[in-house]
Amino acid sequence: MASTDCIFCRIPQDPNADIIYRDDRVYVIRDIAPRAPVHLLIIPLQHLTGFAYIAAGQIPIMGQLFVVAEEMARREGVTVSGYRVIMNQGPDSGQAVPHLHMHLLGGHKLADLG
Amino acid sequence: MASTDCIFCRIPQDPNADIIYRDDRVYVIRDIAPRAPVHLLIIPLQHLTGFAYIAAGQIPIMGQLFVVAEEMARREGVTVSGYRVIMNQGPDSGQAVPHLHMHLLGGHKLADLG
Repeated sequence: MASTDCIFCRIPQDPNADIIYRDDRVYVIRDIAPRAPVHLLIIPLQHLTGFAYIAAGQIPIMGQLFVVAEEMARREGVTVSGYRVIMNQGPDSGQAVPHLHMHLLGGHKLADLG
Repeated sequence: MASTDCIFCRIPQDPNADIIYRDDRVYVIRDIAPRAPVHLLIIPLQHLTGFAYIAAGQIPIMGQLFVVAEEMARREGVTVSGYRVIMNQGPDSGQAVPHLHMHLLGGHKLADLG
C-alpha cells in the first residue's frame, strides 16, 4: 500500500517526524513552506496518487479528511475566523507530491480563488 | 433537510436550473463568476452549513464530492492538465453561500496557494 519512493509514505514511518495528528486513516503535518499563519497538510496513509484512484473503498478515507480538517482547525483556533481546504491534482494545480493531500489554510484573510 | 432560504437548496428544485450533473448525494453547476476556464461547484444536496456538521453519517456524501470531481474533470477535459478543488469555510476564506460546496478549478495554470 505504501511506496518507499514517496515522501508522504515515509513520513509516518519516521520516529523523528513532527506529526501533529494521526489516526488509522490519515496523519497531519505542518507545511514546511507555509503560505498562511496556519498551513497544515492532512495526508491519507494510503498511497493514492490521484483522484482517479478514489473508488468506493476510499470514500471513508476521503470523508475523514474533512472530519480531521475541522478538528485541526479547532486546535489551531481558526474555526470562527474561517479556513480553506485545497487539494491539487496534476500540473496546472502545482501539485508538488504525487500522493494526494489536503492543504488547510487559515489565520488571515485568504486570497480570491484562481 | 433543505432550507428554503438557501440558494443551494433551492437550485435542485428549480426546473430551469442548469444542473450539469446530479446523483442522490450531490449536484453540479457552473460558477456564475468563473475564476478559471473550468469552474464548477459540486454541492451536497443535504444542507450542511459548515465542516462542524460533518459526522459519520455525512462521510459518504463528502467522499462522493471527490468521485464526482474526477468525473466532472474528465468530462471537462482537465484530468491530464490538472485541476484544484477548494472548500471555503467562514469569513477569512471568502465563503459566499453558507451551504458547503466544493469549487473545481482548471483549464489554465492556477495561482499559488494563499
